[in-house]
Amino acid sequence: MTTRLPDGEYESRLATVRDRLAETDADAAGWFGATSIGYLTGFHHIQTERPVLLVVTPETTGIVVPRLERERVAPNPRIDAVETYFDYPGGEPIATALNLLEELGVDRLAADAEGAPGTMGYEGPPLSEHVAVETQSWVDRMRWAKSAAEIDLIRESARWGNLAHRYLADELAVGAHPATVSQRASLRGSRAMLDALGEQYVPRTRGSGPAHAGFISGPQTRLPHGHTANRRLEYGDVIITGASADVDGYHSELERTMFLGDATDEHRHYFELMHEAQTIAIEALGPGVELASVDRAVWEYFEEQGVTDLAQHHVGHNIGMGGHEPPYIDRGNDVEMAPGHVYTIEPGIYTETAGYRHSDTVAVTEDGTERLTYFPRSLEDNIVDV
Amino acid sequence: MTTRLPDGEYESRLATVRDRLAETDADAAGWFGATSIGYLTGFHHIQTERPVLLVVTPETTGIVVPRLERERVAPNPRIDAVETYFDYPGGEPIATALNLLEELGVDRLAADAEGAPGTMGYEGPPLSEHVAVETQSWVDRMRWAKSAAEIDLIRESARWGNLAHRYLADELAVGAHPATVSQRASLRGSRAMLDALGEQYVPRTRGSGPAHAGFISGPQTRLPHGHTANRRLEYGDVIITGASADVDGYHSELERTMFLGDATDEHRHYFELMHEAQTIAIEALGPGVELASVDRAVWEYFEEQGVTDLAQHHVGHNIGMGGHEPPYIDRGNDVEMAPGHVYTIEPGIYTETAGYRHSDTVAVTEDGTERLTYFPRSLEDNIVDV
Repeated sequence: MTTRLPDGEYESRLATVRDRLAETDADAAGWFGATSIGYLTGFHHIQTERPVLLVVTPETTGIVVPRLERERVAPNPRIDAVETYFDYPGGEPIATALNLLEELGVDRLAADAEGAPGTMGYEGPPLSEHVAVETQSWVDRMRWAKSAAEIDLIRESARWGNLAHRYLADELAVGAHPATVSQRASLRGSRAMLDALGEQYVPRTRGSGPAHAGFISGPQTRLPHGHTANRRLEYGDVIITGASADVDGYHSELERTMFLGDATDEHRHYFELMHEAQTIAIEALGPGVELASVDRAVWEYFEEQGVTDLAQHHVGHNIGMGGHEPPYIDRGNDVEMAPGHVYTIEPGIYTETAGYRHSDTVAVTEDGTERLTYFPRSLEDNIVDV
Repeated sequence: MTTRLPDGEYESRLATVRDRLAETDADAAGWFGATSIGYLTGFHHIQTERPVLLVVTPETTGIVVPRLERERVAPNPRIDAVETYFDYPGGEPIATALNLLEELGVDRLAADAEGAPGTMGYEGPPLSEHVAVETQSWVDRMRWAKSAAEIDLIRESARWGNLAHRYLADELAVGAHPATVSQRASLRGSRAMLDALGEQYVPRTRGSGPAHAGFISGPQTRLPHGHTANRRLEYGDVIITGASADVDGYHSELERTMFLGDATDEHRHYFELMHEAQTIAIEALGPGVELASVDRAVWEYFEEQGVTDLAQHHVGHNIGMGGHEPPYIDRGNDVEMAPGHVYTIEPGIYTETAGYRHSDTVAVTEDGTERLTYFPRSLEDNIVDV
């Protein structure tokens, strides 16, 4: 059971970006993005209007942070120099970054952007007004394929997401309020996870959870991004659930289409169509498979069944540190799946009155796939007794 | 009691951006940002890798959305034309956007960015490769000053945030687990809000809540962005809380420094310093006041008291649709406060062992200020009986 990314992962990631750096004319590589900085160093922070810049030279690493992150970054064994400005805008983050670059002898930077992102109203100027910046997206690309340790974390996430989802299913009842059901299931799942892991649980940045489960119900299920925050459950409802857990910054995705009490013949018809589409997609996955071909296999099935007008989106997306990350399983994507890619498989069917979508998280392995989420998929397993 | 932004607000916002458009050479104004699109039209969506573009001409409005948002945007009375692409990347969002622009006769666009943001791995190309785009940040600037109706929503948010915070305070106890305390308080606050508002509650986009309350405790309070997800409360703990509620997309911020059971002399000393700094800042606010002067007033007080080394950030930020938005109350900010600005006032003191910070939400009015959050601020009111 792995609940913390081993230190060696960060060291190997830094080695990889140094190899990439050696192929350029730049003196150092830089990152403004919080997720990339966390990925490379294990220093996780909340991205705000206050710029943060990680600089990696062939020999050393430095970081510019606002004053309020100083004690959080200080113990990080992979960050050698820490430069601090007081706050934004008065603290002059750009001047502080230029100081660090000068200290490190950096004239040319290969960075993830020309300057800090406009999060929460940061207004620049870009660093590129002051120093030569060429942009790179090395980390974004490295994140496509997960290591064995990363997949362990996603597998662990799936375990606690499954528990929260089971608690959710147990709380579903006629008249039940979604806020109560979701928060009770999330609380029970989170407490079980936190009490089970104890000191092994790694809090990264603030947020509720770490386990979550929720749902939408009734007519809003026909909208993939519908919401039913104040709608009590009714007998016969179609319910689309979702559950996950954050394990050292990694995520899984589990969604189920459920029926409260009973499913009509129409419900059963579309559920089975969706179920078959998901099976087709899961079976089409594997190393070397073009992403577009998986989306097309599902589309061809929908064409055969005459339901293409009931589809509203592609088959799925990669998942890891982001709950939703590239590459996408989409007919326009000629990328090939590779070992370590982890995909959500979630083709949906949306009628005038209800939506039908499961989502499972599946890892591509050297010689096939491994389904990481494992809540039962069949219709009978997803009718809630009331 | 206002819980839904009146339609007239959207109409007046659209009229304002049309006035700004008339001052440019562009044929239309455009927005890729989800918050700006929601601000102008009331169509709220989850920003993903799938680009969305709102186009406002002098006479009409159009929007490009992925297929899965079509039914959600269709009923919006302020959006005349809806163009849909299937999904990203295969659905060709840029080609769809160019079609819409051609239909609307737009050759030059004044947009909030040159293309859709890189959210969740969107990779472009920017729209500016295909059509003349000049960038503008009209909405970001318009959002600084809130209307009376917007302040009503923030006031309503403060009410439910206060209730969740009261429930949180009631749940604090020696040995209590933060997940349980936070989720119980959030659930009780959310259920009270949802049951009280009923049909008046406006769900906008998915998310837990709508009311939230949480805290950090013990030594991590000395880190403004600390977290204590799995640390049970101990007698004598310093606790920094936070509570809010989402009311039609608007937020307030309430934070309190509390003590479990009793406060030591050292606790009392630094609490009173923080309390006085917050009082100084609140009293310094008002229309026409330079933001920097408020931050400086607090800093001068810290200098007098010899505690500048215990400060880690500026005094506060504007708040509204964003929980954290510009302009900032910072010594480097020469912006003047104006009626309708709503600020969090949260100067903090951070020792080696504990942090001390209240946050209150205060509106600037025509002739003074109105404190929107109202949980008691005094030391005695923030010692939790155990």
